[in-house]
Amino acid sequence: MDKATLARLLEDVRAGRVDVEAAAARLAALPYEDLGFAKVDHHRALRAGGPEAVFCPGKTPEQVVAIVGRLAAYAPNVLATRCDAATAAAVEAAGIPCTYHALARILVVRPEAVEGIGLIVIAAAGTADLPVAEEAALVAETLGNRVERIVDCGVAGLHRLLAHRELLSEANVIVAVAGMEGALPSVIGGLVDRPVIAVPTSVGYGTSLNGLAALLAMLNSCAPGVSVVNIDNGYGAAHQASQINHLIAKIR
Amino acid sequence: MDKATLARLLEDVRAGRVDVEAAAARLAALPYEDLGFAKVDHHRALRAGGPEAVFCPGKTPEQVVAIVGRLAAYAPNVLATRCDAATAAAVEAAGIPCTYHALARILVVRPEAVEGIGLIVIAAAGTADLPVAEEAALVAETLGNRVERIVDCGVAGLHRLLAHRELLSEANVIVAVAGMEGALPSVIGGLVDRPVIAVPTSVGYGTSLNGLAALLAMLNSCAPGVSVVNIDNGYGAAHQASQINHLIAKIR
Amino acid sequence: MDKATLARLLEDVRAGRVDVEAAAARLAALPYEDLGFAKVDHHRALRAGGPEAVFCPGKTPEQVVAIVGRLAAYAPNVLATRCDAATAAAVEAAGIPCTYHALARILVVRPEAVEGIGLIVIAAAGTADLPVAEEAALVAETLGNRVERIVDCGVAGLHRLLAHRELLSEANVIVAVAGMEGALPSVIGGLVDRPVIAVPTSVGYGTSLNGLAALLAMLNSCAPGVSVVNIDNGYGAAHQASQINHLIAKIR
Amino acid sequence: MDKATLARLLEDVRAGRVDVEAAAARLAALPYEDLGFAKVDHHRALRAGGPEAVFCPGKTPEQVVAIVGRLAAYAPNVLATRCDAATAAAVEAAGIPCTYHALARILVVRPEAVEGIGLIVIAAAGTADLPVAEEAALVAETLGNRVERIVDCGVAGLHRLLAHRELLSEANVIVAVAGMEGALPSVIGGLVDRPVIAVPTSVGYGTSLNGLAALLAMLNSCAPGVSVVNIDNGYGAAHQASQINHLIAKIR
Amino acid sequence: MDKATLARLLEDVRAGRVDVEAAAARLAALPYEDLGFAKVDHHRALRAGGPEAVFCPGKTPEQVVAIVGRLAAYAPNVLATRCDAATAAAVEAAGIPCTYHALARILVVRPEAVEGIGLIVIAAAGTADLPVAEEAALVAETLGNRVERIVDCGVAGLHRLLAHRELLSEANVIVAVAGMEGALPSVIGGLVDRPVIAVPTSVGYGTSLNGLAALLAMLNSCAPGVSVVNIDNGYGAAHQASQINHLIAKIR
Amino acid sequence: MDKATLARLLEDVRAGRVDVEAAAARLAALPYEDLGFAKVDHHRALRAGGPEAVFCPGKTPEQVVAIVGRLAAYAPNVLATRCDAATAAAVEAAGIPCTYHALARILVVRPEAVEGIGLIVIAAAGTADLPVAEEAALVAETLGNRVERIVDCGVAGLHRLLAHRELLSEANVIVAVAGMEGALPSVIGGLVDRPVIAVPTSVGYGTSLNGLAALLAMLNSCAPGVSVVNIDNGYGAAHQASQINHLIAKIR
Amino acid sequence: MDKATLARLLEDVRAGRVDVEAAAARLAALPYEDLGFAKVDHHRALRAGGPEAVFCPGKTPEQVVAIVGRLAAYAPNVLATRCDAATAAAVEAAGIPCTYHALARILVVRPEAVEGIGLIVIAAAGTADLPVAEEAALVAETLGNRVERIVDCGVAGLHRLLAHRELLSEANVIVAVAGMEGALPSVIGGLVDRPVIAVPTSVGYGTSLNGLAALLAMLNSCAPGVSVVNIDNGYGAAHQASQINHLIAKIR
Amino acid sequence: MDKATLARLLEDVRAGRVDVEAAAARLAALPYEDLGFAKVDHHRALRAGGPEAVFCPGKTPEQVVAIVGRLAAYAPNVLATRCDAATAAAVEAAGIPCTYHALARILVVRPEAVEGIGLIVIAAAGTADLPVAEEAALVAETLGNRVERIVDCGVAGLHRLLAHRELLSEANVIVAVAGMEGALPSVIGGLVDRPVIAVPTSVGYGTSLNGLAALLAMLNSCAPGVSVVNIDNGYGAAHQASQINHLIAKIR
Repeated sequence: MDKATLARLLEDVRAGRVDVEAAAARLAALPYEDLGFAKVDHHRALRAGGPEAVFCPGKTPEQVVAIVGRLAAYAPNVLATRCDAATAAAVEAAGIPCTYHALARILVVRPEAVEGIGLIVIAAAGTADLPVAEEAALVAETLGNRVERIVDCGVAGLHRLLAHRELLSEANVIVAVAGMEGALPSVIGGLVDRPVIAVPTSVGYGTSLNGLAALLAMLNSCAPGVSVVNIDNGYGAAHQASQINHLIAKIR
Repeated sequence: MDKATLARLLEDVRAGRVDVEAAAARLAALPYEDLGFAKVDHHRALRAGGPEAVFCPGKTPEQVVAIVGRLAAYAPNVLATRCDAATAAAVEAAGIPCTYHALARILVVRPEAVEGIGLIVIAAAGTADLPVAEEAALVAETLGNRVERIVDCGVAGLHRLLAHRELLSEANVIVAVAGMEGALPSVIGGLVDRPVIAVPTSVGYGTSLNGLAALLAMLNSCAPGVSVVNIDNGYGAAHQASQINHLIAKIR
Repeated sequence: MDKATLARLLEDVRAGRVDVEAAAARLAALPYEDLGFAKVDHHRALRAGGPEAVFCPGKTPEQVVAIVGRLAAYAPNVLATRCDAATAAAVEAAGIPCTYHALARILVVRPEAVEGIGLIVIAAAGTADLPVAEEAALVAETLGNRVERIVDCGVAGLHRLLAHRELLSEANVIVAVAGMEGALPSVIGGLVDRPVIAVPTSVGYGTSLNGLAALLAMLNSCAPGVSVVNIDNGYGAAHQASQINHLIAKIR
Repeated sequence: MDKATLARLLEDVRAGRVDVEAAAARLAALPYEDLGFAKVDHHRALRAGGPEAVFCPGKTPEQVVAIVGRLAAYAPNVLATRCDAATAAAVEAAGIPCTYHALARILVVRPEAVEGIGLIVIAAAGTADLPVAEEAALVAETLGNRVERIVDCGVAGLHRLLAHRELLSEANVIVAVAGMEGALPSVIGGLVDRPVIAVPTSVGYGTSLNGLAALLAMLNSCAPGVSVVNIDNGYGAAHQASQINHLIAKIR
Repeated sequence: MDKATLARLLEDVRAGRVDVEAAAARLAALPYEDLGFAKVDHHRALRAGGPEAVFCPGKTPEQVVAIVGRLAAYAPNVLATRCDAATAAAVEAAGIPCTYHALARILVVRPEAVEGIGLIVIAAAGTADLPVAEEAALVAETLGNRVERIVDCGVAGLHRLLAHRELLSEANVIVAVAGMEGALPSVIGGLVDRPVIAVPTSVGYGTSLNGLAALLAMLNSCAPGVSVVNIDNGYGAAHQASQINHLIAKIR
Repeated sequence: MDKATLARLLEDVRAGRVDVEAAAARLAALPYEDLGFAKVDHHRALRAGGPEAVFCPGKTPEQVVAIVGRLAAYAPNVLATRCDAATAAAVEAAGIPCTYHALARILVVRPEAVEGIGLIVIAAAGTADLPVAEEAALVAETLGNRVERIVDCGVAGLHRLLAHRELLSEANVIVAVAGMEGALPSVIGGLVDRPVIAVPTSVGYGTSLNGLAALLAMLNSCAPGVSVVNIDNGYGAAHQASQINHLIAKIR
Repeated sequence: MDKATLARLLEDVRAGRVDVEAAAARLAALPYEDLGFAKVDHHRALRAGGPEAVFCPGKTPEQVVAIVGRLAAYAPNVLATRCDAATAAAVEAAGIPCTYHALARILVVRPEAVEGIGLIVIAAAGTADLPVAEEAALVAETLGNRVERIVDCGVAGLHRLLAHRELLSEANVIVAVAGMEGALPSVIGGLVDRPVIAVPTSVGYGTSLNGLAALLAMLNSCAPGVSVVNIDNGYGAAHQASQINHLIAKIR
Repeated sequence: MDKATLARLLEDVRAGRVDVEAAAARLAALPYEDLGFAKVDHHRALRAGGPEAVFCPGKTPEQVVAIVGRLAAYAPNVLATRCDAATAAAVEAAGIPCTYHALARILVVRPEAVEGIGLIVIAAAGTADLPVAEEAALVAETLGNRVERIVDCGVAGLHRLLAHRELLSEANVIVAVAGMEGALPSVIGGLVDRPVIAVPTSVGYGTSLNGLAALLAMLNSCAPGVSVVNIDNGYGAAHQASQINHLIAKIR
């Protein structure tokens, strides 16, 4: 299906000549749209119903503009992650509506309000972990989850974490973000009987080995119910948390 | 609360002198039972309602016998993981009812049938991954989940995996077990929109680095919705999968 | 043989005083030309018949200009790899004819059209892998191979790869380029019975360890028929692919 | 297709009731045979025409017997690699015809003579590298290649290698096996313009890091035309070498 | 000073012909006693006043017997650490009075009761950490410190640790022993304002990397006041804890 | 307790309406003050009596200004560690009194003279280790310890260290700072019977691996009485040294 | 000995009031000169008779100026290694006579011609290895050795190395400099029976791991007679080569 | 040259029909003797004049017997290193005269007394380092060097090392053997102006990482004049030390 055909189909839908169901069926069969340097996968969005995400590093601003432009033609709330200010500016300059969250380095393209269901709690051990935690929180919110944040609750000051015990036990899933010794997920996993997705961060120095120390600690957690994603991967944790939260919350 | 007091309380319950609710309340407050070399935590079992698990390596057979004996006094289906044949024999010789699964190195103490709810799919890439996959499957079954197994479905023979696509899409959560290049979770995560818990195994040689290669591959999965547990940690994956599956299945 | 002698010999050839065969024999015996900081090896070019390549990092623009200048005096299509824009500009400023490919960081010095024989397929998992894939593709083309490119065909979207199954099975050799979890070569190796040269890239973050994760995955591929080159080494993969493709294609 | 149906089909072929082409077509469509703990892939053998190989570590002798038994029912020269003496004895005890090569730890099941075409040269740096080199040589011979061996030709005694320069230049592909500093492939790659598949071995001690030092050296070879397989992976190198050699030699 | 001279000097002291101060001065100048394969250092014992320790691995039973025999001639309570049963038996068979602690792999040679001053608390995260914790406890007791043990107080069950908060705050120094994620020292360091010496143990599997994960976590502790010793080095932690405790307790 | 209440309480104290003891009691119960991005922990300062420290990397200058501002409202000598010049300027620009130590990258906020008790010796192996050693020295002085510095006393020039033997033996605790081969703590630990806290630095190149070589050497010290902190962690070493020195010196 | 005393002593020597032998004796006893941030060690220069060297990284230009100024007051040819252009300019601006070698990043302070004795051969594998090789060559020349350079003689072009076989066999000691796979020292060690000091360089990318690959290869050399220094440590190799060459050459 | 020819030549020499010079010339041209699994290199022995060495690990006892048998036919004092007792017994059982040194795991085949020239000092830090130190000492003695041993002189007891300062300064070259923190070569390198060859040993545990910690420390030595060989490589250090010592001592 070339772009002209696609445009015609969409025109037909708008004009009422093709009904939505028929068009959706045709589009769902469309494997992907080839931009030469990238294959824009409309399949996933159509199948899963949620927003698409583009990982920006290693792509030129021009490539990001082209990709998010195509994706936003089909669905709102396209996420550009690890997006620097220059790339965000390029998208904006291309006339594509978007909102930039500098701390989380996230650009939401064609932003639309979404209702949040269920509950995901995002806990961050220290102030320096906030960029990753905020990436997770914004992604989870954009994917349609209710999110509560707990910040600066590292294990060296247990009272700061214990104060939120009740909130933690209400969550369908907890995303625990920590650098340095990475002990937060173990302590949370010991406190409440909920799935914990641990996100090691590159916060630290020397033997933190850019987050490897936290990663190893989390993989060796003595509390069961803890699984781990890549260092600084707030997006990945939020994506899986959203999958779990939706499976639970959609039923209630 | 000493052991005598505990025995008296349980006698009272059996005799109807103390009702179940009151006794449960007292026991839930009991922090743990001190065996000198271990603190048996009755809290968790009472709170979470599921079976306890004992990780055997580093404990003498005598210690394992003592710990599972105490735990089995309170609840059925106590799990002894990474249990070698000698330790299993010691538990049996102590007159504690139990079933030993040699491939999975799991001993189920005071085994009782459990109904399995929801659906967890355990997928194993190769024959050599079976011990870890079977550990996960048995733990998940003991924790009250319906489990389906897919074996020998490594990515070098895609047709063997694709044949099970429908089953995968019905799961509430998928545990993907693989050694060597550890690509299975990425491919599954790309096929179906379900949370995938990846278990790297130590299967391989040379640069598999005892499972580190598979672990790294899984942490770097280009498919979102994949989180990872420690190498060979079938138990941990099953525990979290069970948490998720129960949150979903209990509601339906 | 000093430079004057060499010049005289070439003059003699041009003037018809020495025939080509005799001159070639003399030159083939010439071990190398010493520039003081580098030994320009005319042997290899004469023996193998293909273009020479210069790896630029660690050499000053002046050194690169001198080396490619000498090499281009003997043969067209000299390759300068990992060539930054400044070095490319220096070569151009020196009046040496050349074409610069910015994405692939390749400078072709004294470019001449070459017919491509056989078939090498270059497959790249993601958009961010394009610089390495394009380095491989340009090198292979310059070395006289027919090249087909497949881009953005990562394993998390299998349909994007399976669409090219026929092309893959026609190749004499396949170069598979991937970062992150590096699973592409395993999946291709399982699909078609052709030699696969895997190129890990430094695309990724955190536990990608600058490409080590992808490298390890490729070395542990469960598909036989996969060998691996250094991280980001598009040149090396293309060189070996060209050796293989020429051995096959020259015969047909 | 169950086993009975398969048996009937084969009977029909033997009896002439079904012709070979028709039966081959049916079998080629058969995805795999499920043994419960392994999926025996008849596809690959039928498609590629070459013998199958089973990697023994992590499989019980009983599992190996079952798998090679099924594979040998379809084709001769099934290879069991990294096969210890006990497993070899179990296969023999099961009445399956086989030949055991102790040094190379290879069991050839239902051995049949094969004509070797083309030329693969296997070069081993030291005596301690022989088990890996011999694994490669036997696999290559079983896959139908002419193989020549060069042993004990490490780079600290160049004259031992240079003596074989002519043989090296006649090869379609060279497998270079070395532990310790792993320099052999670089030197060979500099001597002759043929594809070199490098196999690092775990020969060495201390900083050899079980073969990682040799692996790294090979990946960093300053000679182009060198690609690398996993440590001690003689099988993998031979498999790819055979793919290349067959593509070249079949044409001549 | 040869052995005869030494014996004569000691006789003189016993007989009152040389006073203690003069003899001590002579002995303090004695550098060491040369056994050929080891230099027995009497200096340290005389200077520091505490017992000597011999690290057994890498020494033959005969060497250990010779060394502890010489040391015990000068002072009681010589410690042989990481001592296996065979070596312990060899010392006993040599007629040297000694007590063997199998769990802690410690042999106390020429044991004498010592009064314990001050307070060192040894906290162990899990049952499998007991050998290392017990090594630390026995060494500290032998060096003349009052020791209290807290066992099985890992961070996944905080209530088990918090129950001992008062005891922790009374210690002059705390030795915190933990494997797996190694979070115990961070939590203790956050609870009480006392120096914490962290001992990572090799307890764990897979990514515990034989204790490196715990070590890294401890070095990256977000609680200040935590320093770390080598993996499983209960002796080293106890030695430094004793130095600190004695400096504090001797003054009171 | 909100900020208004807190302000009122402090007003009352200033006005004499509430006496200091009563106010201190109320404040000690106050868990922390929530700034949104950080929880300022007044607990620790009140409990331990010493100054607070803020680790600057990963925090914006604005965040640092806010945090040290709140902390300085309660106590003098707040430490901002790893503080770059821009952040120091931001604090000063906010009108908060402070002193910046550029070499040690330390900002002392609301500086007040403190009397130094006991004795901590800080020994630095080389000139390049001075920033870390000076961080340790300034922190220790601010925490109320008498500090003596020994610089450029690396083990390759033993006479430079031995000249300070007497001073070393007078210390209650020694902080030994070294990069490269990190041998200084071992030599000091062999010279004097005092606790040595070793600080590896990232001084070196190549195989110093950014300080890992020094760290490993220190963890493997053959001298007992040596414990180790993270690479370049002068603050952590000084904090623990201060804990130990205060426990000793306060008693005398 | 303070600076005034030192000056007076030197005046006395100059005036003939103190003879050289007596002054030398006094100076040899002088341990070092304390600049506050560094201890200038005059001992070594006096004892060994050769020039001093200052490693610049981690020192401010001011510190380097002060240190080389003091050293140059006693002896010519003080070496400042890894010296950047700014530091070199600072020394020159301070009026201290010096010569800067940009490629080798070496500053020779108070340069004086030295006669070179014996023979050290410095062999560099590639053009990119020249900065390290040149550092070694200049240091060796300054230390009074005759030096011959062989450049661009990597093992992938053996004829370029073999052409210098005679020169290599005349050397008292050979310094072999190589990055990437680091095979040069093995090949040289196999060619000639002379001590080879191997210098790995950080030349390479990806799995060269900043020179670790070359280092490991050199440590695992199958040729005896090869020892290794730190990555890029041309100075260290030259220093030891000079020690050896002087011990040999001084005698002849 | 086949074996018969060789025998005839030697007979001729014995009978005086061929003079020694002529025979030596013919033999020096003999590249090597091919045993099938190994190429026995007579070249090296003839050229260098010293004994040959065989590294036993990875070779079967039968292979070792064959190789040392051939080598001993040409020269006395063939060394078999890392030789276990079984291999030694096999050589003896084959009727080849030999002496086995169990501690050093060295077998001297056809032992003959050699005069030791010059001086090599072998210094070992601890008793557990003796096997490696003794390997170095025996190799050096067999290669014709005078050897002095200093044992148990680790840096935590400096007086034990300083007692041998004079001996160290008389050596032509020093081999310094140490495990754990590996500081011995740095301290020796600072004491005397002689080349130091450092041998890290695998003595230690935990973070010694089987000798990597000691290796890294030695490579980062702050004393110049230190080069390093592989972990536990006593043979390699002795070989290079012998090269150096012979170049110096032969001249005097």
